Amino acid sequence: MIRSTTSPSAEQVRQGNIRAMARLISQIEREEPAAQVEMAALYPYTGQAHIVGVTGAPGTGKSSLVNELAKELRRREKTVAIVAVDPSSPFTGGALLGDRVRMRDLSGDKGVFIRSMASRGSLGGLARTTAGVIKVLDAAAYHTILIETVGAGQAEVDIASAAHSTIVIEAPGLGDEVQSIKAGILEIADILVVNKADHPNSQRTVKTLEMMLHFGSTRQMVRHHGETMLIDDTAASTNGRDLDWQVKVYQTIATQSQGIPQVIDALEAHQAYLRASGEWQEREKARSRQEIEQLLQAQVLRQLQTRVPVQEREQLIAAVAAREIDPYAAALQLFIHLKQN
Amino acid sequence: MIRSTTSPSAEQVRQGNIRAMARLISQIEREEPAAQVEMAALYPYTGQAHIVGVTGAPGTGKSSLVNELAKELRRREKTVAIVAVDPSSPFTGGALLGDRVRMRDLSGDKGVFIRSMASRGSLGGLARTTAGVIKVLDAAAYHTILIETVGAGQAEVDIASAAHSTIVIEAPGLGDEVQSIKAGILEIADILVVNKADHPNSQRTVKTLEMMLHFGSTRQMVRHHGETMLIDDTAASTNGRDLDWQVKVYQTIATQSQGIPQVIDALEAHQAYLRASGEWQEREKARSRQEIEQLLQAQVLRQLQTRVPVQEREQLIAAVAAREIDPYAAALQLFIHLKQN
Repeated sequence: MIRSTTSPSAEQVRQGNIRAMARLISQIEREEPAAQVEMAALYPYTGQAHIVGVTGAPGTGKSSLVNELAKELRRREKTVAIVAVDPSSPFTGGALLGDRVRMRDLSGDKGVFIRSMASRGSLGGLARTTAGVIKVLDAAAYHTILIETVGAGQAEVDIASAAHSTIVIEAPGLGDEVQSIKAGILEIADILVVNKADHPNSQRTVKTLEMMLHFGSTRQMVRHHGETMLIDDTAASTNGRDLDWQVKVYQTIATQSQGIPQVIDALEAHQAYLRASGEWQEREKARSRQEIEQLLQAQVLRQLQTRVPVQEREQLIAAVAAREIDPYAAALQLFIHLKQN
Repeated sequence: MIRSTTSPSAEQVRQGNIRAMARLISQIEREEPAAQVEMAALYPYTGQAHIVGVTGAPGTGKSSLVNELAKELRRREKTVAIVAVDPSSPFTGGALLGDRVRMRDLSGDKGVFIRSMASRGSLGGLARTTAGVIKVLDAAAYHTILIETVGAGQAEVDIASAAHSTIVIEAPGLGDEVQSIKAGILEIADILVVNKADHPNSQRTVKTLEMMLHFGSTRQMVRHHGETMLIDDTAASTNGRDLDWQVKVYQTIATQSQGIPQVIDALEAHQAYLRASGEWQEREKARSRQEIEQLLQAQVLRQLQTRVPVQEREQLIAAVAAREIDPYAAALQLFIHLKQN
């Protein structure tokens, strides 16, 4: 294999130069073509970090917990990157002053990198750019990358699918209606945390979750969301994992730093399990498959813009809008055009 | 233009045969290739219905309001289809018995069609299948199609982008945290409704929304979400619309059928505005552009599966996962392969 010649800037990213990282991340966010060249150069150095999704509804104390998890990892001498993809997160500027002050514990520490993903403009591009940012942090050799999401929508499910391990946070006292919405999110949990364990209804929440884990048809959709894939990977993905990993419920009080080491222990155990079972490699393959598909699709759209004359494209669109031809026929026509040029 | 020969089944759908509609909708949900043939046959008959997105967080009384809107439309002798894409909706079975009983007013009426979209399995496929279902209902000549979504995630934003008019529902007393999350959703509103107007804090919610409308940078993302497009349509989409349509706040008490005719009046005014301003045609074009792109991308993935040998694909994926080649190079290789075969 011939590795791409590493550019000076990619080399700086690898060495953890904050300014080089920030510059590349901004390029990724603006989806500049130059970023792709850098990313290709950095790609061989990725695949080392433990990528952890942390997801939970507003009010669960998710950001405080992320903060505590990062501090505990630092105590264990692990470097940490936090990527916040949540409009209500203090990292992205949506929360109360008290939260922001609390974050300052981390911001002076060189072993911690914090980045919030702006959701301005394109929500659809968010999963794509977040995946790029994770790769940069991975190449920059952060040991653990915590991705904080609110866990509500498709973009966030896609983001979570980039994670090796997913922590789902619940909290007592948020009301039944909220609970029912979050039901789907349980299915992606590797580790469940009930935060605010000092709340009077905390035990009831723990019991409910344990019952759902026991009886529910959880962990079925998990990493592959039924999207068209290059290869059907059903066989590979069910290969031995549901047999061995037990999803458990942990209790924390993030505001009092209670129960945090146990969650980090569980994370480490999950990582060990992934590696031992071969699941880590399977997930890398699933992720590679997904990424190649996305790049290929982007490539096709780019080719369309450069190779099919504007006028022809616009005429086709107008004809479909006017119901003169159907969109299936129009797509086929463009596809044939693309192959011939 | 040569229209496709309408199949007997497509003809039945056009005539509003409920059984034929339900069968086709099921085929769409299972993403069966046969559905595409039917859809192509039905396509010339679409483009007539007024497609209305109704979005709001749980607790806003969204389903009751949808119910009342449907009843008012029936009073005005308009046929109505309701598509519920919301796990907490009584239409999809997530709510209390009381709600379900309330829905029975509608279910005996032949001028009303109700369909819930299951979100089991692929969330990513939901927007795609919902768009298909809307087309079926459009071809079946329903006057108004109400699409009920909880308005939280990307899939739902995509679904909302299929709408001509979007109603966003707020309610007093849901707490500040919930409000801040929903901020983004305001930007897609054509009509704002504060339901539960008999709540003591109702006036405050109305005032807050009116201030946000006045000062906020709302209505910027609107219909085009910054996704890669065949053509940059910025010029077309800003063409004259923000100048003419004033988003206003309406107050309702859905449980007492109060304030409903005013909302329907606003909907009718919005539809008239869309048609008069040329915005209706612009949205049709934007939708056609998006649909052609999606079909083209799906086509490329299908071609990949049939034309590139399984072994070659799997080797490429494994090489990317092992960091032997980067995904950009792999995608390019597949693209070239695809063009040569």
